[in-house]
Amino acid sequence: MAKLYGSLSSRAHRTAWMLKELGIEFEHEPTNFLDGSTRSPEFLKVNPNGRVPAYEADGLRLFESLAINLYLARKHQSPLSPASLEEDALMTQWTHWVMTEIEKPLLLASANLLLFDEHKRSPAEFEVALNKLARPFAVLEQHLSEHKYLVGDRFTVADLNVSAVMTLIRLASLDMTAWPNVDAWLDDCLERPAAADWKAIRFKIPRPDSDLGVLAMFV
Amino acid sequence: MAKLYGSLSSRAHRTAWMLKELGIEFEHEPTNFLDGSTRSPEFLKVNPNGRVPAYEADGLRLFESLAINLYLARKHQSPLSPASLEEDALMTQWTHWVMTEIEKPLLLASANLLLFDEHKRSPAEFEVALNKLARPFAVLEQHLSEHKYLVGDRFTVADLNVSAVMTLIRLASLDMTAWPNVDAWLDDCLERPAAADWKAIRFKIPRPDSDLGVLAMFV
Repeated sequence: MAKLYGSLSSRAHRTAWMLKELGIEFEHEPTNFLDGSTRSPEFLKVNPNGRVPAYEADGLRLFESLAINLYLARKHQSPLSPASLEEDALMTQWTHWVMTEIEKPLLLASANLLLFDEHKRSPAEFEVALNKLARPFAVLEQHLSEHKYLVGDRFTVADLNVSAVMTLIRLASLDMTAWPNVDAWLDDCLERPAAADWKAIRFKIPRPDSDLGVLAMFV
Repeated sequence: MAKLYGSLSSRAHRTAWMLKELGIEFEHEPTNFLDGSTRSPEFLKVNPNGRVPAYEADGLRLFESLAINLYLARKHQSPLSPASLEEDALMTQWTHWVMTEIEKPLLLASANLLLFDEHKRSPAEFEVALNKLARPFAVLEQHLSEHKYLVGDRFTVADLNVSAVMTLIRLASLDMTAWPNVDAWLDDCLERPAAADWKAIRFKIPRPDSDLGVLAMFV
């Protein structure tokens, strides 16, 4: 049976969502990324990077949540899967786009809205993050003003991967008034029954003591 | 004919390398990312993100260099291409890994070795970056101590994508003595004739005036 490692408070929720969309049964090992379990000698044999999720099935071991999801989409044909190499290219493109343009600045924004203790949040860092996010959010807003979904006019692994990274928007209650199409699309994606695990995500990040520590955390 | 946008001093060199490996003729528009050309109204029609590279062929428009390369590998069968869905999964995995684990800290390290003016470099920031890189470099070192290449015991798009991001190691003369297998593999990849464009990369980044500006640049 397929096996997924990683607490559903971690990026493992992204792959749990994909597996549930596809109806794939899996064993779940909720390896905790906050208590050192992802750095244990046993776990490092599963993923030498010491990160979750990790996925095992049919003798294949994979890391990187969004790469696992793209593989699952290709392997298990469904409406979420690419119907052609061109759709696959666009699904991979949007997946890379959310990693490049959104993930880190959204984490910085969320840290300063939610994940850092309240008295350790920095409005200036939040502004920096929001300024970085404004451009990709505008690109997505424009795309979603013309298309209901990212690729092929149906919910696919592209929407799943991009919206799964964006769960932090909801967890941190980031104001999305300026991007109404993104806001509505995000609801559409994240309210799917298979996605529900993200709603239970609860964690805090201790703010590093220095500006250099903050840089180290987010670079 | 296929068309590639982006100066070869930019991430466009990654896709130029892939196109040359595959023997695909292409028109090259060396859109400059330092003089504002990537933000012109004309270019934003090609890539609304205002970044290079962008790629057009057969009515398909793509952005994100490493996603374009994975598409080209799938579209044009060669030894660089995945021979199975499992190889494809691993090639995508390593591509995501270099984006997640290497790209940003390597840029921070390189900024403080080369890209910032000499009197504006920060040894402390360099140390932060090197500390972040040590873990993924060790993972890659271990893998390459057991395998000549990343996937399938031959040079593939996985090696191309990962080593193309790592050109900064050579441009910035980062000391790789601690990771000899990575060092040798990187030579093997970057000395391929199709890769040669990276050697001409020359650019500087102005150091932002504040710690907040540095965070904004690298997040």
